[in-house]
Amino acid sequence: MPELESLLSEITPPDESLAPAAQDRLDNLTKPPGALGRLEELAKRLCVMRGSLELTQPRAVAAVFAADHGVALSGVSPYPREVTAQMVLNFLAGGAAINALAGQAGAEVRVVDVGVDSDFPDHPHLIKAKVARGTGNLLEGPAMSEAQCRQAIAAGAGVAGELIQAGFDLLIPGEMGIGNTTPSAALAAAFCGVEPAAVTGRGTGLDDAGLARKKELVAQALELHKPDPAKPLAVLAALGGLEIAAICGFCLMAAARGVPVILDGLISCAGGLCAAELSPAARGWFLAGHASVEVGQRVMLARLGLTPILDLEMRLGEGTGAALAVQVLRGAVAMLTEMATFDSAGVSGKE
Amino acid sequence: MPELESLLSEITPPDESLAPAAQDRLDNLTKPPGALGRLEELAKRLCVMRGSLELTQPRAVAAVFAADHGVALSGVSPYPREVTAQMVLNFLAGGAAINALAGQAGAEVRVVDVGVDSDFPDHPHLIKAKVARGTGNLLEGPAMSEAQCRQAIAAGAGVAGELIQAGFDLLIPGEMGIGNTTPSAALAAAFCGVEPAAVTGRGTGLDDAGLARKKELVAQALELHKPDPAKPLAVLAALGGLEIAAICGFCLMAAARGVPVILDGLISCAGGLCAAELSPAARGWFLAGHASVEVGQRVMLARLGLTPILDLEMRLGEGTGAALAVQVLRGAVAMLTEMATFDSAGVSGKE
Repeated sequence: MPELESLLSEITPPDESLAPAAQDRLDNLTKPPGALGRLEELAKRLCVMRGSLELTQPRAVAAVFAADHGVALSGVSPYPREVTAQMVLNFLAGGAAINALAGQAGAEVRVVDVGVDSDFPDHPHLIKAKVARGTGNLLEGPAMSEAQCRQAIAAGAGVAGELIQAGFDLLIPGEMGIGNTTPSAALAAAFCGVEPAAVTGRGTGLDDAGLARKKELVAQALELHKPDPAKPLAVLAALGGLEIAAICGFCLMAAARGVPVILDGLISCAGGLCAAELSPAARGWFLAGHASVEVGQRVMLARLGLTPILDLEMRLGEGTGAALAVQVLRGAVAMLTEMATFDSAGVSGKE
Repeated sequence: MPELESLLSEITPPDESLAPAAQDRLDNLTKPPGALGRLEELAKRLCVMRGSLELTQPRAVAAVFAADHGVALSGVSPYPREVTAQMVLNFLAGGAAINALAGQAGAEVRVVDVGVDSDFPDHPHLIKAKVARGTGNLLEGPAMSEAQCRQAIAAGAGVAGELIQAGFDLLIPGEMGIGNTTPSAALAAAFCGVEPAAVTGRGTGLDDAGLARKKELVAQALELHKPDPAKPLAVLAALGGLEIAAICGFCLMAAARGVPVILDGLISCAGGLCAAELSPAARGWFLAGHASVEVGQRVMLARLGLTPILDLEMRLGEGTGAALAVQVLRGAVAMLTEMATFDSAGVSGKE
């Protein structure tokens, strides 16, 4: 069996049978039942995903998948293409937003070159898994061949496997790639069955004219490729990006290993959505870190059935919204593991 | 000049002159301008409130003000009145939600008995500032005399003064008091000029019949006292609670000393709103930790001009939503202080 199909065959949804016991434990803590709202839901989800009521604080890691995009040469971003490589160096030097926010949340950062049009020196936090020096331009032909797409998925799956092997038990798929909101919007339109205008946003900061043009380009790409959502691998290859395919594989491996994933913004969710289209069982392992300003992200979250933890009007990517959400998960774990029960604290219940 | 009037005279709004420099610094960090959304706004607010671009991670503390309420005997809560005292002991033993969430956020907890109908042994984290053993029933007469109200305000101001003196620079007003959503709803209606039904919620978990009755009781209280919002001290004394008055004083002292306050849920916001009604300049020192399920809280936040940081469908109080929001502020500080600039990282800007 080919690698991807073998991975897909290993994925089962979380065992929900622990949910009632988790709910009982939550209801015995010294607070009115349900008064901690989504924090309680998150604690319960973690219990189900971990298969235990004895939660421990997560060992979290953000893997920032970087790749270049042929479509960047069509003027879909106000930033030059070389910023992808420059930002990889910034991540490795610890100067980017994901470094600051992951550090604050007690999460580590790894950078994965899965398709940057540049070469990098070795670095202990850099994983070299380059499939190609960027994608083809999806306005002219497929972004990737199916073989490249499978290779990028395998690269992402391999990264997740190594990180889980190293003891991480909460995975964040982050990304960097100038131009990558365009393929993500195209994937969102293809899988969610909506018009390009409903999923196309300003990315790093297009003006009104730029946004209008980007919507047209996404529509052109869909017209050219006529993606069939029933064939998710072909859709991902035609419209996606190397980092999006790698995130897809990363999410699939996490699901296969039973490890929770916190999705981040538009691109991260595009990768997660591709994973769920390939394996609907995978989505039970996903949480949504935040609601992005990029409209397509909310459309994909709705299709994934996920409610974002935070809404801080962010649109940066890299994994930043998911990293902030780790702090909320830590609060959920602290609540479940540190609070007294009505009995143990001698507090009266409802009359 | 009496103590309260002297305190009010010391309050000035934050000096906004640093905001453009803070914005410049944010715009030079390696991210598209504004891409971190509210995190950037929060960093800018902290710069303005601290009067410096050189932010340090906050030393945060939650002061949980506890008091009993005469109205609790009218059946406005599904929990018995003695839970107030039982929860004080739970806070001191470290078993409540605020202990878990503040601990996770690197914040300390202090408990202030400003009006519990019980006596407590000494404890290093208990501040004894009892004004009375609970309020009168606002359905029958004023909750407090004006003298008691002033005394509770002074108690809260004193606590803030001591905590600031001890080096804390981010204050959370938390609370505990069975029955205290009823006076808070009455205060919200009085100051915001809305109908009781628009600000009255289920508190710790009333059913539909209990909620309908609570709305009627709040309406009765307003009918009885005919509060004049132009006389905030009289309104607070008639409708409030000892912990709400103490929170009012706590917020006023923080504002007078130029220290930011993160308001929490319905009761915490009622105290903050009373402070802002007494001194409109005080509100510039406030942040809103979260949006509560309790409807009255959002009405008060709107009047205060504050946008909540989190919305996790919580309704517990104690300071829990504000404690979680401390983590987001820590992210904002990390972003501003740890990120590289475009120049320092050699990253290209917009074309």
